[in-house]
Amino acid sequence: MGKIFVVDLAEGEPVTSFFLAKQVQLRQRRSGEPYLSLILGDRTGDIAAVMWEGVEEASKGLVEGDIVKVQGYLGTYQRERQLTVTRLRKASPEEIALDEYLPRSPQDPVALLARLREMVEDVREPHLKRLLRDLLAEEPFLNAFMAAPAAKSIHHAVLGGLLEHTVSVVGLCRLLADYYPALDRDLLLAAATLHDVGKTRELTWDRVFDYTDAGRLLGHITLGTLLVEERIRAIPEFPEDLAQRLLHCILSHHGELEWGSPRRPKTLEALVLHYAEDLDGKVNAFLGFVQSHSDPQRPGWTEFNKTLDRYLYFGPRDAGEAPQGISKPTPSSL
Amino acid sequence: MGKIFVVDLAEGEPVTSFFLAKQVQLRQRRSGEPYLSLILGDRTGDIAAVMWEGVEEASKGLVEGDIVKVQGYLGTYQRERQLTVTRLRKASPEEIALDEYLPRSPQDPVALLARLREMVEDVREPHLKRLLRDLLAEEPFLNAFMAAPAAKSIHHAVLGGLLEHTVSVVGLCRLLADYYPALDRDLLLAAATLHDVGKTRELTWDRVFDYTDAGRLLGHITLGTLLVEERIRAIPEFPEDLAQRLLHCILSHHGELEWGSPRRPKTLEALVLHYAEDLDGKVNAFLGFVQSHSDPQRPGWTEFNKTLDRYLYFGPRDAGEAPQGISKPTPSSL
Amino acid sequence: MGKIFVVDLAEGEPVTSFFLAKQVQLRQRRSGEPYLSLILGDRTGDIAAVMWEGVEEASKGLVEGDIVKVQGYLGTYQRERQLTVTRLRKASPEEIALDEYLPRSPQDPVALLARLREMVEDVREPHLKRLLRDLLAEEPFLNAFMAAPAAKSIHHAVLGGLLEHTVSVVGLCRLLADYYPALDRDLLLAAATLHDVGKTRELTWDRVFDYTDAGRLLGHITLGTLLVEERIRAIPEFPEDLAQRLLHCILSHHGELEWGSPRRPKTLEALVLHYAEDLDGKVNAFLGFVQSHSDPQRPGWTEFNKTLDRYLYFGPRDAGEAPQGISKPTPSSL
Amino acid sequence: MGKIFVVDLAEGEPVTSFFLAKQVQLRQRRSGEPYLSLILGDRTGDIAAVMWEGVEEASKGLVEGDIVKVQGYLGTYQRERQLTVTRLRKASPEEIALDEYLPRSPQDPVALLARLREMVEDVREPHLKRLLRDLLAEEPFLNAFMAAPAAKSIHHAVLGGLLEHTVSVVGLCRLLADYYPALDRDLLLAAATLHDVGKTRELTWDRVFDYTDAGRLLGHITLGTLLVEERIRAIPEFPEDLAQRLLHCILSHHGELEWGSPRRPKTLEALVLHYAEDLDGKVNAFLGFVQSHSDPQRPGWTEFNKTLDRYLYFGPRDAGEAPQGISKPTPSSL
Amino acid sequence: MGKIFVVDLAEGEPVTSFFLAKQVQLRQRRSGEPYLSLILGDRTGDIAAVMWEGVEEASKGLVEGDIVKVQGYLGTYQRERQLTVTRLRKASPEEIALDEYLPRSPQDPVALLARLREMVEDVREPHLKRLLRDLLAEEPFLNAFMAAPAAKSIHHAVLGGLLEHTVSVVGLCRLLADYYPALDRDLLLAAATLHDVGKTRELTWDRVFDYTDAGRLLGHITLGTLLVEERIRAIPEFPEDLAQRLLHCILSHHGELEWGSPRRPKTLEALVLHYAEDLDGKVNAFLGFVQSHSDPQRPGWTEFNKTLDRYLYFGPRDAGEAPQGISKPTPSSL
Amino acid sequence: MGKIFVVDLAEGEPVTSFFLAKQVQLRQRRSGEPYLSLILGDRTGDIAAVMWEGVEEASKGLVEGDIVKVQGYLGTYQRERQLTVTRLRKASPEEIALDEYLPRSPQDPVALLARLREMVEDVREPHLKRLLRDLLAEEPFLNAFMAAPAAKSIHHAVLGGLLEHTVSVVGLCRLLADYYPALDRDLLLAAATLHDVGKTRELTWDRVFDYTDAGRLLGHITLGTLLVEERIRAIPEFPEDLAQRLLHCILSHHGELEWGSPRRPKTLEALVLHYAEDLDGKVNAFLGFVQSHSDPQRPGWTEFNKTLDRYLYFGPRDAGEAPQGISKPTPSSL
Repeated sequence: MGKIFVVDLAEGEPVTSFFLAKQVQLRQRRSGEPYLSLILGDRTGDIAAVMWEGVEEASKGLVEGDIVKVQGYLGTYQRERQLTVTRLRKASPEEIALDEYLPRSPQDPVALLARLREMVEDVREPHLKRLLRDLLAEEPFLNAFMAAPAAKSIHHAVLGGLLEHTVSVVGLCRLLADYYPALDRDLLLAAATLHDVGKTRELTWDRVFDYTDAGRLLGHITLGTLLVEERIRAIPEFPEDLAQRLLHCILSHHGELEWGSPRRPKTLEALVLHYAEDLDGKVNAFLGFVQSHSDPQRPGWTEFNKTLDRYLYFGPRDAGEAPQGISKPTPSSL
Repeated sequence: MGKIFVVDLAEGEPVTSFFLAKQVQLRQRRSGEPYLSLILGDRTGDIAAVMWEGVEEASKGLVEGDIVKVQGYLGTYQRERQLTVTRLRKASPEEIALDEYLPRSPQDPVALLARLREMVEDVREPHLKRLLRDLLAEEPFLNAFMAAPAAKSIHHAVLGGLLEHTVSVVGLCRLLADYYPALDRDLLLAAATLHDVGKTRELTWDRVFDYTDAGRLLGHITLGTLLVEERIRAIPEFPEDLAQRLLHCILSHHGELEWGSPRRPKTLEALVLHYAEDLDGKVNAFLGFVQSHSDPQRPGWTEFNKTLDRYLYFGPRDAGEAPQGISKPTPSSL
Repeated sequence: MGKIFVVDLAEGEPVTSFFLAKQVQLRQRRSGEPYLSLILGDRTGDIAAVMWEGVEEASKGLVEGDIVKVQGYLGTYQRERQLTVTRLRKASPEEIALDEYLPRSPQDPVALLARLREMVEDVREPHLKRLLRDLLAEEPFLNAFMAAPAAKSIHHAVLGGLLEHTVSVVGLCRLLADYYPALDRDLLLAAATLHDVGKTRELTWDRVFDYTDAGRLLGHITLGTLLVEERIRAIPEFPEDLAQRLLHCILSHHGELEWGSPRRPKTLEALVLHYAEDLDGKVNAFLGFVQSHSDPQRPGWTEFNKTLDRYLYFGPRDAGEAPQGISKPTPSSL
Repeated sequence: MGKIFVVDLAEGEPVTSFFLAKQVQLRQRRSGEPYLSLILGDRTGDIAAVMWEGVEEASKGLVEGDIVKVQGYLGTYQRERQLTVTRLRKASPEEIALDEYLPRSPQDPVALLARLREMVEDVREPHLKRLLRDLLAEEPFLNAFMAAPAAKSIHHAVLGGLLEHTVSVVGLCRLLADYYPALDRDLLLAAATLHDVGKTRELTWDRVFDYTDAGRLLGHITLGTLLVEERIRAIPEFPEDLAQRLLHCILSHHGELEWGSPRRPKTLEALVLHYAEDLDGKVNAFLGFVQSHSDPQRPGWTEFNKTLDRYLYFGPRDAGEAPQGISKPTPSSL
Repeated sequence: MGKIFVVDLAEGEPVTSFFLAKQVQLRQRRSGEPYLSLILGDRTGDIAAVMWEGVEEASKGLVEGDIVKVQGYLGTYQRERQLTVTRLRKASPEEIALDEYLPRSPQDPVALLARLREMVEDVREPHLKRLLRDLLAEEPFLNAFMAAPAAKSIHHAVLGGLLEHTVSVVGLCRLLADYYPALDRDLLLAAATLHDVGKTRELTWDRVFDYTDAGRLLGHITLGTLLVEERIRAIPEFPEDLAQRLLHCILSHHGELEWGSPRRPKTLEALVLHYAEDLDGKVNAFLGFVQSHSDPQRPGWTEFNKTLDRYLYFGPRDAGEAPQGISKPTPSSL
Repeated sequence: MGKIFVVDLAEGEPVTSFFLAKQVQLRQRRSGEPYLSLILGDRTGDIAAVMWEGVEEASKGLVEGDIVKVQGYLGTYQRERQLTVTRLRKASPEEIALDEYLPRSPQDPVALLARLREMVEDVREPHLKRLLRDLLAEEPFLNAFMAAPAAKSIHHAVLGGLLEHTVSVVGLCRLLADYYPALDRDLLLAAATLHDVGKTRELTWDRVFDYTDAGRLLGHITLGTLLVEERIRAIPEFPEDLAQRLLHCILSHHGELEWGSPRRPKTLEALVLHYAEDLDGKVNAFLGFVQSHSDPQRPGWTEFNKTLDRYLYFGPRDAGEAPQGISKPTPSSL
């Protein structure tokens, strides 16, 4: 039996499907009998659920993060959809296709990688070219690079988000290298490709997006620097100055010390990479927030965005047209 | 007799030319006799000068900012070139071509304006189109817009710098509007064109670059808002919401309150304009500083840049090749 | 039947009155039956309410912000008063006197306006005098100016609060102009009168206090500058320098860039206006917080004030005397 | 022979008078012979001086801060007045009237003290009244309180400046206590009178204005708190709460921790005192800077003020009228 | 009948004991009947409790902070232990041993005081020695000094915490005085002993840890300065300079103005005291947080620490070994 | 002929010695003849010098940073010692013992290294022990580690300063590990030893102390992380978690992001290392500043210290005793 996604649940109909149990609480009715209050979800969204009967057995050994198979039917409670669960059990490993449960970039990672490799072929400086080619041929690295999100939250926080963000930044830097000929195009493209590779070691993305121990203790800027510097040392006669300028771009791409960069940009390429990277993240965060947090009480506005510390405005539109009018930002040439 | 520029003065040769007297000091020799210590300049640079004889008459009524005609010969003092002046008088108005004395953008303002008008034709929203066309047809505005520097110092601080910067930002925004289709292209191009028009009222550029009283008291963000809002009101049925979104872009283009914007960007267009504008200014400032302040003691590095609070690095190069290797940033399609 | 105010509800008695439905939640009893949980309010305060019967019909089409007519009786729940509602329907427009539902300044707007006009007559500089007289004769402006609150929250957040605050600041500036004779009295009085007029366009005050779109996108400082500059241009031969000094006062009245002023005070009048305006707002906020948030557990102290980031102390008093001891701040001469 | 003040020195005439030697440098002519370069001054201003003959003897034992008797004549050097000294010797103690050498408040300290005592009589709370009366009757305290400047620089940096500032703040607070009746008038007047008394121990004002060791190590806020607390303890049954509220005003009068107050204002009186004190200092600093640093190149503007980090504008005036047009700020009722 | 501590409550067993009622809420069942929801606690921890019967009588006059005697039995609700209360009454004063209800330092105050006196005997400068000896002999001071916590929360927030922290800082300073011989050992030890004595007047610790009025209005830095300065004045011929250096250490021990010190350290002893004091507090806060807030979901890590704005890591350990592996920080020589 | 040091130059005597030419300026006498103005120095200090004859030949090819041999005699100019040079030539390489020209730590590097190795032997965890032993046996690393300064300026800015600072921090950490038993002693000692090893690549110390390109672009924190991580990878089965905790200490030892650490301390060892490292630097900077910048006008005080933004106080002492009274800070057990 195939998976039914949260977004497709139809009110009043019976449901049999798998979900990620994101929240599990055993509560007590006034009568003293227990019931289960759950939040179930998958990559399309979340839904509240309750289970009234057979709770004791169903809840045994159940923990948050488990994938569960449920039967039930969809009703409404306090004007919100609510799933009343009649049967529930933990799924067996072979029943689980994990990426049904975490949000995923709408862009195909294989196509993105092909796009990245194509852009990387533009690089003419032989050491940089070899560095990029070699890394994009490392199987274990690629597996992580294609799956990782770009962040735990805020922007590109979806499976494949790191690759999507990287391709977008590389594409943007290519435009900027054409626009400002004083830029060292090869260095900028290489730095854009590598600037966030440390995130493959900083984050985990198995059942939730979170930081690894290394991520918390060292951070992706240092992890990326270590990863790249090791590859550089493996390439004979990699020019010392070129290596330093490349690593400087990675180190300084957050732009300011207080944003976690141990150096601030001192080269033109580092400066431009910082702007391109920051802009791409901000555009993605803006559009994502508009899609997920538009204010139902006030057309054209989002709810308050705590990260940016302001309300966002996406303009006056007809009631039905609004959110759809904003398409996903994608490099136009993809 | 034509003007000889500071950059062309040849050591050991007699000099007869006009210069801007940037600094004038009457000093006293130990013997008690007075002498004149001057800094003379034009748009190609500055030179120190001294005058030993006929000082009393020459200095009468002479003030900083005067254009003077001098005779003399070029020598060396403390390893720096120094002009010993034998005759000096104030120039008469008809002898002065002012733009020989202030630095000027290397780009032709007529070509830049043509370029800007061409890009503005891309705007399809009729009210915005009319607003831009009308403004770019106002003679007094255009005179100022084509002559003004973009700043007193820091970036694009040259005659014609405002137009050069504006064209560059519009060009960049055009690329970004193609790259991120969620952007309202018309709004972004209009905002990019108008974002700094207040500088035509904030700055003076007759003999030195400085702020007007209005510039100091109101600032170019408010002056530009007033200027644009007045034109908007003159256009029948200009949509209220569109006007607010356009003015919001102007108000917020510095990005943060502490950088002088009374609002922070709340729309995608305002956000992107801020990044484009800031990036273009920083690239220009970086390259200008590299050209004017490379550290002779340390190849590849500039002297300390107080605005950015760091040294800048433009890479390792051969002694002779360095500064030339960095070409002026220009929109590639110009 | 007249309105009964929240503050006058007597425990145990039947209630029939109109209220603003500030919060509306349809909840489910354990039995599965729905009930309504409400917060009802008017300008004198809020009260929690529940409705157990006839819920389905009563809640149809009911949204927050509606004025409703309710019948019920007042009881206690968790030591707080609670209204049990037996009947509820939306009020018809002709039943509503809106200002019964929003808090209102205790001061009479007509008297305040008269007071303001009287103080404005002190201004002797003819252009400023005409500017003020003309504006205070504009009907649509006056309607808004007399009704608007001075803020969404924090200080003078009541109907009529803008006028109350303005009159208080003008009065204070009059004292300061007498105290420091170096001040340009006319300019200071004019600036004090006009400093917050942009709030008539920044805020809405129909059923809740909130920001308009223009308020969020442009802010009252810019809106006020635009409003005043338009009136200035309508006055023949208004001196340019005087206009700039007046607009400078409006622009800089928040004192610092990070508080939203695009300029910081550069004239003595702008400096003094900033202090007077800030002080008057702080005094009002202090007293309002003492009245609404005194800490019942700790006599003489308020609860924690998040805006000021501290507890406030209004001194040791007898249990009964405390809050009353603090009278509303009013210009003493009113 | 009486003192001739710097401000009265007439060009071309012989001079015989006493001055404070503010700077003393023994320099060498190219010929190898020594000469003295001096800055001499008194409370009316400074003047540069040189001495060519008899230098060896004159400079023996001469240190900066000495009062010297000089003979010479006034000439011009680099467009500035310069005194050529022919004879110079240190003054004997009996020749020195110290207050001729340091700038002094234009207001009479005896009149100011009388005014302060009169205002203090308004205080009705008996403990506060006794505290103020007792302190203003302490001879050694009064001597310092009447002579001390209010600061080393910035504002009221003149002999008698502390008393002048104190009287002005008390006067201002009296107005504010009338304007905002919620204020505890007695507490506010007492706090205003005492807020800066620690400066009598923080500063020295014998030959230059500087900090004492205690001033540097403890600061005037703590020194004032200690001074006042000692007097409070000497008054029987001084109410504990009143004492705490008074000391709180002194501690918090700088308003923010980063400005040196260990507490921020938590009472209405402390809040108002902070504003009054800050405003009075700023007004005085503004006017003082306008008088001493108007920009000769730009009528209506001062030079750049580093403390306020901006240029100041005192408006457009006729060339001759400008500085005189700004009178000293004085409590209007004095 | 003895007290049973929260930490010792056994599931399923009847309970009869005294607890501090930290939270008291009267709620209503759907049926309309009231019940009591409580949080009960003592120095070993907290436990949730409910009371279904006899609520009306039990809750009469009951307020948070009361010590109550309860009967009931321990069950589980939502996987947490919950006490169902069958009888409840307020305890009489003679039944209460207050220190059973507040957390207490594990170290014996008598031993700590003895240790402190011993270290103080090291001080050889006679005035400092007398100052310390005298103060440590004052009965009322000692009672407070031995009982007070070192803070309301954050670090050493336990009865006896102030003495524990003081002894630890003095011990640390003794090591540092040996390590850096340039330090004035006597001054440093005296300052370490006295740096936080103001907390005896800043805090209350009867039923909860909170600030006194004096604590909120004046703060422990000023209260400590006043306390010490009074003792200094009582000692004949206490050197002025020594007194200032000692008070300077107290005033500046928070290191920066924004952390509440009105002076920043200007002497070597003040500098070192600041580091020692801060380090000791941080180490204690770190270990306390690890013990109380280790993240059950993530071994080796704590939950998010808001004060430090980060997660803390105490390393990888076996499930059972973890928290116990971290012993309380104690001066090693105790 | 041996070197005569600046500190030993005797007034009035002929001088023949080698110095570092720190500043070289060719100036012009009024007569038009050139002369040389120099600042000569060695590790004991600097002295001003002039050369009047034979200037043309002497100055040919002379640049700042050259070691020169001079003859001349010592006189006085403007109350400062001045060397009048009669002969001057550049030294040949074999005449130069470089460490005579740069300041050097008073401590013997061989003894310091022995001390460090001894302390390192305390480490018992085998992987850490091997890491430290191996690194301290690497010849090229050791050469740099023993010679490098700890900073370009501020603290330990002397040859051997890095090793001196490292030994001092390790010694301090050893004390702290004994004092706070919760600390992982082995990890802390290893981290203390390695925290600044990146400075061997960040700085140059041949003729002046300056940053390398790598130092400016990557910084010592990243350079040290790369250096240590490379050594860790060379050790078989180095525990991953231990490696991360060690690198975390290096990364976070500046404590805050804005001080250049890309992570803030999250482990107890990282926290303590930060305090120990910071304290040791501050103590050294304090004492160094007292020795070099005591204020001759104000006994007991230094001149204004810009780094710390304050004056420093080292107490009241007799005129002759003052500077000597402050001995160099040294680990007491050395």
